[in-house]
Amino acid sequence: MELTAVEVDIGTRSPTILLNRADATELGVRPLDRVQLSHGDRISIGIVEVTDGLVSRGTLGVTRRLGHVAGVVDVTLAPRPVSVSFIRKKLDDVELEHHELRAIVEDIDADRLNDVELAAYVTGTYTNGLSLAETRSLTEIMTDVGESLVWKDPIIADKHSIGGVAGNRITPIVVSIVAAAGIKIPKTSSRAITSPAGTADTMAVFCPVEFTLAEIQQIVEQVGGCLVWGGGVNLSPVDDKIIRVETPLSLDPPGQIIASVLSKKKSAGSTHVVIDIPYGEGAKVRDLPNARELAEDFKRVGEHLGLTVECTITSGSAPIGRGIGPVLEARDVLAVLDGGGPKELRLKSLRIAEILLGCCTSDANASTLLESGAALAKFREIVAAQGGDPDVTIADLVPGGETVEVRADRAGVVTHIDNALVSELARRAGAPKDAGAGLYLNCTVGEHVEVGHPLFTIHAEHEAKLAEATQLLAVSEPVRVRSVGEALVERI
Amino acid sequence: MELTAVEVDIGTRSPTILLNRADATELGVRPLDRVQLSHGDRISIGIVEVTDGLVSRGTLGVTRRLGHVAGVVDVTLAPRPVSVSFIRKKLDDVELEHHELRAIVEDIDADRLNDVELAAYVTGTYTNGLSLAETRSLTEIMTDVGESLVWKDPIIADKHSIGGVAGNRITPIVVSIVAAAGIKIPKTSSRAITSPAGTADTMAVFCPVEFTLAEIQQIVEQVGGCLVWGGGVNLSPVDDKIIRVETPLSLDPPGQIIASVLSKKKSAGSTHVVIDIPYGEGAKVRDLPNARELAEDFKRVGEHLGLTVECTITSGSAPIGRGIGPVLEARDVLAVLDGGGPKELRLKSLRIAEILLGCCTSDANASTLLESGAALAKFREIVAAQGGDPDVTIADLVPGGETVEVRADRAGVVTHIDNALVSELARRAGAPKDAGAGLYLNCTVGEHVEVGHPLFTIHAEHEAKLAEATQLLAVSEPVRVRSVGEALVERI
Repeated sequence: MELTAVEVDIGTRSPTILLNRADATELGVRPLDRVQLSHGDRISIGIVEVTDGLVSRGTLGVTRRLGHVAGVVDVTLAPRPVSVSFIRKKLDDVELEHHELRAIVEDIDADRLNDVELAAYVTGTYTNGLSLAETRSLTEIMTDVGESLVWKDPIIADKHSIGGVAGNRITPIVVSIVAAAGIKIPKTSSRAITSPAGTADTMAVFCPVEFTLAEIQQIVEQVGGCLVWGGGVNLSPVDDKIIRVETPLSLDPPGQIIASVLSKKKSAGSTHVVIDIPYGEGAKVRDLPNARELAEDFKRVGEHLGLTVECTITSGSAPIGRGIGPVLEARDVLAVLDGGGPKELRLKSLRIAEILLGCCTSDANASTLLESGAALAKFREIVAAQGGDPDVTIADLVPGGETVEVRADRAGVVTHIDNALVSELARRAGAPKDAGAGLYLNCTVGEHVEVGHPLFTIHAEHEAKLAEATQLLAVSEPVRVRSVGEALVERI
Repeated sequence: MELTAVEVDIGTRSPTILLNRADATELGVRPLDRVQLSHGDRISIGIVEVTDGLVSRGTLGVTRRLGHVAGVVDVTLAPRPVSVSFIRKKLDDVELEHHELRAIVEDIDADRLNDVELAAYVTGTYTNGLSLAETRSLTEIMTDVGESLVWKDPIIADKHSIGGVAGNRITPIVVSIVAAAGIKIPKTSSRAITSPAGTADTMAVFCPVEFTLAEIQQIVEQVGGCLVWGGGVNLSPVDDKIIRVETPLSLDPPGQIIASVLSKKKSAGSTHVVIDIPYGEGAKVRDLPNARELAEDFKRVGEHLGLTVECTITSGSAPIGRGIGPVLEARDVLAVLDGGGPKELRLKSLRIAEILLGCCTSDANASTLLESGAALAKFREIVAAQGGDPDVTIADLVPGGETVEVRADRAGVVTHIDNALVSELARRAGAPKDAGAGLYLNCTVGEHVEVGHPLFTIHAEHEAKLAEATQLLAVSEPVRVRSVGEALVERI
């Protein structure tokens, strides 16, 4: 059939071809089918949506992702990409071969799969799992797709934390310590997806975080480390597309986590990596056996890629720092670097830095680097190199002025702080978009509190958002206080 | 945030809200998130797509499925429907409770789930299966959604075939026999999705097939049976929405098949149902154990719903009739009703009719009804009641005039006729859209043929489509002929 093509931006990720219902019926195609457009000697394939109004009969709409298509084109039914049959195999619990995974990754990269097929890939790898061989292949293939960084140094350090724990902002501290030890650490981090702040959101409080790969290379060559947003560069483009589909379902297939993390590290040119795996109620990894298994697989796949991988398994059942939300976390980070700050955040950062330094065969001492102020000086260098104010003080980092303080309504022991609930409160208060919004914890698990002891403070930049957060307070118990007797029973 | 709403039809199934990228960033929402629009005292929730061009900053596009929304609206982030967490449970292989399945079905019915969530539901029920209790619940819930038919008669017959077998057009024959026995049979059928013809496409050769429920009731009260398109009525609206997502992945979770089929039968007011389960290479059900298990589950769930269900397990490894495509199948149907036609089609129709009559405790004899011409007379009554020509003859049913005949290139035995390949040839030739297009088999499996014996003829209405079909011939062997020795070895 011959139709006239016009460009329409309907906001879909995949190359979409919008057909008038009458033309679609005539062609015998349905939504989610694919059609091929031939125009001159060029051929484009896109996924069909059917409309009654947006394009009229005889005309078809094409999205920009399809490339430039205009004027009269010949339209024919196109077959599904072959990778769809490999996704189908995974749903039937058949182990996929290297070339089959490659076809899937390449089709994801080229936006050739529709949302149904992408979701089937993610749910299939979740319910049926990925074998070690599949995970290895996938990591290798995802490393090949996208750009990469190359360094002269033989040792390039990196770290990654599996998410889900509130206030776990150890990265700026670890990077500063390791870079202060003279080991290059080109750290890319994510922005918040479902949490109140990612490392990139917290760093954005101090300085710009969006750079090109060439700029990142230059910053790291100059000061030994960086703390930038990974989404601004093309190190693992497929990862973002997979995450987009995982997010609505809160899915994180373990094999996919390994492939995503390690392919990104490999593309960043890293050679020595520490993976922090928090486990426990509310964390992404639920229990110790699962954490151990994930750690073993991380090491095995790392070895296959020629990476030295160390894993730490840490408690993830309660927040680490006191602040939750970009500015509140930035204050904690600066306080720790300055010799104070929340104890748990300080201890965890030091331990991870120590392990990473050991793994890089450095004999530098993490505590000394932190206590001497060397790490703080290095952090200020990184902030300056990224275009921020190196002389920033905690007083400059002002949390949102609309606040509600929540106090203990009985005396007792803090038995539980709920990661998911404090994160949700911080998000409702406006984090991460309102950098000053969030939540500050005035207690830790195990602490004895009297009636009226402040438990936490919610900060917002806007009154309406504070109200949205406090609404949730009425029906939830983010910090649990129990009398000593109750607390004992609860622990049995 | 306040934005001005305008209506945009971008051809999505779910209620979609199209945001300009800048507004989406400001709101902190991503594609596939949900937002709530408040306008006056009305609230609408839709799924977000983000565009650079189609709507400008300060404006948002809403699709018609969202209801009438226009003018200034207040936009806030809306939570996911609770059913998404139940879909997540299914992915974790947790058995779902009745109220959880109800929430999923109701959200599918109301188009509240995006394609990623819908695909996760379908793949989850496929990879982790549905227990008998879940299948029962699902069938009951799907019956409750949508409209239903009510009859005065105590016995209402129905039949269903699990698909995948080419030329398996027994339905018009079975319905005519059963209605001729004086038992009401309000049969709704589908149009082709991935096959060259559905029963509704074949019936459309004789008469209109699209009617309202009231019209169907009237036709059946008048002549005892009907052969109409099920997609035109609202008997099981959720089923169509699930099939839309299953089709791109060629998925058919057994529990879902049972729920779809039996909920539709129950909604149609049927009391006695025969389910034909073809199995074998190329059929939807691959082997005998799976066919038996499916049959048992059909009977158990039927019992739960108060339906009398009989199942037949039949060979589905080769086509049943000779014609494939609407007109060619219509010719076979009329030939069988007229006392001739393909032997396998005749025998299978008679056997299914016999079982259905027995199940309805009728002592009518299927063979007598067919041989006496009573079934043909009943078929003509049904055609007339649906607005077709009751005096139609085979000569009136003219297949496409563009033909290619394929002949045996050696002497031997027909060892295999490939369901998928002959269907694909018929589709390429233009079926089901071009009713006269398709394929006619001049041989059956097991037949001895000489060199030059005609194996099959491809019919098309357009030369270009015939060419598309013949291209496939060059690289495939839809009908396999082997020398007697080869054939024996192949059978071992």
